[in-house]
Amino acid sequence: MMGLMMDRPLLTTEILKHAVRNYRKTEIVTRTVEGPVHRYTIADSAKRIAKLANALAGLGVKKGDRVGVIGWNTYRQFELYYAVGGLGAVLHTVNPRLGPENAAFVINHAEDSILFYDTTFAPLVAALKPHLKTVKHYGVLSNSENAGEAGEGALIYDDFIADHAEDFEWPEFDENTAVTMCYTSGTTGDPKGVLYSHRALVLQSFAACLPSSLGLTEGDVLLPVVPMFHVNAWNTPYSSLMTGVKQVFPGPRLDGEGLYELLDSEKVTYSAGVPTVWLGLLQYLEQTGKELPYLKAGMCGGSALPEALIRGFAKYGVELRQGWGMTEMSPIGTVNVLPPEVKALPFDEQIPYKLKAGRALPFVDMRLVDAEGHILPNDGESDGHLQVRGPWIIGEYYKTDKPTLTADGWFDTGDVAIIDEDGYMQITDRSKDVIKTGGEWVSSIDIENAAMLHPGVAQAGVIGVHHPKWQERPLLIVVKKHGQDPSAEEIKEFLKPKLDKIAWPDAVEFVKEIPIGATGKVLKTELRKMFKGYELAD
Amino acid sequence: MMGLMMDRPLLTTEILKHAVRNYRKTEIVTRTVEGPVHRYTIADSAKRIAKLANALAGLGVKKGDRVGVIGWNTYRQFELYYAVGGLGAVLHTVNPRLGPENAAFVINHAEDSILFYDTTFAPLVAALKPHLKTVKHYGVLSNSENAGEAGEGALIYDDFIADHAEDFEWPEFDENTAVTMCYTSGTTGDPKGVLYSHRALVLQSFAACLPSSLGLTEGDVLLPVVPMFHVNAWNTPYSSLMTGVKQVFPGPRLDGEGLYELLDSEKVTYSAGVPTVWLGLLQYLEQTGKELPYLKAGMCGGSALPEALIRGFAKYGVELRQGWGMTEMSPIGTVNVLPPEVKALPFDEQIPYKLKAGRALPFVDMRLVDAEGHILPNDGESDGHLQVRGPWIIGEYYKTDKPTLTADGWFDTGDVAIIDEDGYMQITDRSKDVIKTGGEWVSSIDIENAAMLHPGVAQAGVIGVHHPKWQERPLLIVVKKHGQDPSAEEIKEFLKPKLDKIAWPDAVEFVKEIPIGATGKVLKTELRKMFKGYELAD
Repeated sequence: MMGLMMDRPLLTTEILKHAVRNYRKTEIVTRTVEGPVHRYTIADSAKRIAKLANALAGLGVKKGDRVGVIGWNTYRQFELYYAVGGLGAVLHTVNPRLGPENAAFVINHAEDSILFYDTTFAPLVAALKPHLKTVKHYGVLSNSENAGEAGEGALIYDDFIADHAEDFEWPEFDENTAVTMCYTSGTTGDPKGVLYSHRALVLQSFAACLPSSLGLTEGDVLLPVVPMFHVNAWNTPYSSLMTGVKQVFPGPRLDGEGLYELLDSEKVTYSAGVPTVWLGLLQYLEQTGKELPYLKAGMCGGSALPEALIRGFAKYGVELRQGWGMTEMSPIGTVNVLPPEVKALPFDEQIPYKLKAGRALPFVDMRLVDAEGHILPNDGESDGHLQVRGPWIIGEYYKTDKPTLTADGWFDTGDVAIIDEDGYMQITDRSKDVIKTGGEWVSSIDIENAAMLHPGVAQAGVIGVHHPKWQERPLLIVVKKHGQDPSAEEIKEFLKPKLDKIAWPDAVEFVKEIPIGATGKVLKTELRKMFKGYELAD
Repeated sequence: MMGLMMDRPLLTTEILKHAVRNYRKTEIVTRTVEGPVHRYTIADSAKRIAKLANALAGLGVKKGDRVGVIGWNTYRQFELYYAVGGLGAVLHTVNPRLGPENAAFVINHAEDSILFYDTTFAPLVAALKPHLKTVKHYGVLSNSENAGEAGEGALIYDDFIADHAEDFEWPEFDENTAVTMCYTSGTTGDPKGVLYSHRALVLQSFAACLPSSLGLTEGDVLLPVVPMFHVNAWNTPYSSLMTGVKQVFPGPRLDGEGLYELLDSEKVTYSAGVPTVWLGLLQYLEQTGKELPYLKAGMCGGSALPEALIRGFAKYGVELRQGWGMTEMSPIGTVNVLPPEVKALPFDEQIPYKLKAGRALPFVDMRLVDAEGHILPNDGESDGHLQVRGPWIIGEYYKTDKPTLTADGWFDTGDVAIIDEDGYMQITDRSKDVIKTGGEWVSSIDIENAAMLHPGVAQAGVIGVHHPKWQERPLLIVVKKHGQDPSAEEIKEFLKPKLDKIAWPDAVEFVKEIPIGATGKVLKTELRKMFKGYELAD
């Protein structure tokens, strides 16, 4: 028997309408690419979103068309999120860190008909242009005053929308319609496209707004460092409007000083970004002696949250919380908000909990599977391949001929993880980065996290290298902290009480830089290339 | 172009699974019908829910079957919510306050095949039995020790589930499948059935959990006085599990003393109920001099929240918040959580905001329509018929042959309201209770609220009575507070500075009791009968 409720679609436009009705005066602040701070309200933004929708419709953008954008977190990219999706078209956010070859591939693969870009990326777009097969219009995210050479041969965004009406009759359509798309920054093979639906992002927004997730609400000020050019900026453009949070967009300045200025002047209460961003901010604070009187908490995701960062920010009264997700998960899977009984513990005893990826959001199912496909218990000990299922998790990559899911409909994350009886999930490694030594598995991430606790270590990466007896053994690769000069022996001794003996690295090598991928993760593939044929002394 | 996300249904069972995974140790506490307090955990509850599902399936309950229940808020009714819905069957919650005639009507109309009841309602069920056409099994919500005579000829719940397995393979089905049903307590005509879907209740749970709605989370303790036998207890059985809130079920004792005991012993942080319940608690506090050290806030809905209650509870450090909804809205439409800039005002200046019904939840659309069907502006001045639309709002009454919605798909609430530019909605009256006087509309509710501020007034009801010149004029009907003896003139003088002259009641009459309907609202129809043919002196 069917219920007899209204059939109303879950469209992102409804979130915008809700925000205009309930939070019209809430501000949206942007550090522009040119430098000055731009500010307007949700009501102002909605008018420009309507103008943009009218302009895009006038240019011939139809339901299902893909509109590309290569841009920083700014109010103009925010407007694109709502206007393009609201038309029933698809905003394809292109990660500029993919590199020109991959960027051209994804734009062609998505068949973008328009490509918007920030002036910063004009050289990249110029290099791409000869290779782009479907783009009919280019648009620079600027105005006639600032576009300069970057705007040559392109629509200038502010002029493009200027003469259009401030309202738009948003169409209603199936909630499973695509709204945004994003490509994985796969370290092997071509990037793969993930096509998000309105339904998926609306549901994830609800889940992200729960007090047990981000828990932001009216009066909170969010600075999303996590880029809009990748996985919907962790859904913040939607969840912020759902509860009336003031957004502060950092534009291109993601360095410690640039972020600090906005955190301070806009009284930001919450931020979100990858560990390297938080590290940059922490170093800035330590160097300048500045404080963070307004910031209460932050979400850290993209790769494991190092203990040193948790402790470093705790000194400033900021609670860093780990989140875990994937491009294929829209992207949020788990968030680590501690329950009251853990928060009541002394700080040091909270650390083991904080180092976990957190507990899954409602409607995100997780399971652990061993190499033979048997489902393992969530007992806090068994580690297995982490598979997930839920309404904001990928069903199929875009234009693929291979099955994306397991035969019984789960997505294999490529991570190895443990889940305990209270639902806390902990990634022990990427399946392909696990070090297989003498028939046992050693987590490269555990070693990296332990090494990051050494005061002389700025960055750490661990790979398995060939060993004649044990098959593989861990090699620790370290970038020293500025002004510090730890020795390999000193670091090895430091690690001994922190790790099981099987995980003690056989060698430590120092490098100037550890290669970081387009989404802030250590590129193990590059490390493996750098240390190809490495011979252990023993 | 469709998104390429997984197709996963929004089923209430997923909320239960989530709670077992993340909040297994969270308690559920019940004051039983027999008196003693029962306590178990979410993990225990899930096992009994599985046993119940197995038992019901064994009894032949199939997808779409209706299972009736007449019961208090207890862990057993809570188990029915999840087990019946999880099977794809429909839990029909019967309001015992409907009276025997209407109760028989709704059970026959819903075609319930089983009827569960608390021992309290055994006499009611005995009286109903000869009139029930479809009920094949009766089940008493008790155990063999306590069922006594009430259990004669009935399954005894605890025995019924005892020998069944503690796990159940919950089926997956269309999220639009019905999960619960409830009949309106319409004051005219037969009760009308509302059939809620899994999708509607899951979405409403997400919305209810937002920090801008109930905002409850782990560590919070909720005592829902709002009954599970009507409109899903404001969705609390679902939203509590979504965020791991400890629930405290009051069973049959809803008097001030009974509630106080649990609020105190279980350290309840949040409660929810109709104004009469809050009033009973306030009177108990005033009479006993007791305090509420744990309770932080409460939701008050069902009818307008009187200023006297807001002020009364503020003295105890409890923030009463108004909510508004309807049986036809699952039921939550608006919640009044004040934004930081209003909370920063002196308390007296917050009152006008607190007296509003609040702002709509995301995905609840509201509009005002005048008598000619023109849409009115949300300007804080225009009042019109309030119409609503959204994914948890009724599409059609059960087995009706009349259209439930307007021609363009909105549900007319039967309320007259104002909406301001910040989204605050204020009910000015029920459409049929508005007093039409000399071509103008006067709100009966405004007069009632003003009268309730008088220290000698315990309850107030206002109806329009015939006036030879003005067509209708307001008559104020008052129940005096215990030990107080205000005069009609004194009350009239008291109201003058509080109301526009047009709203000054022409007469005040005193009664021992004002009739209250099955959901705690003043029964205006009964008042009109009591004062039929009333002649104004002037």
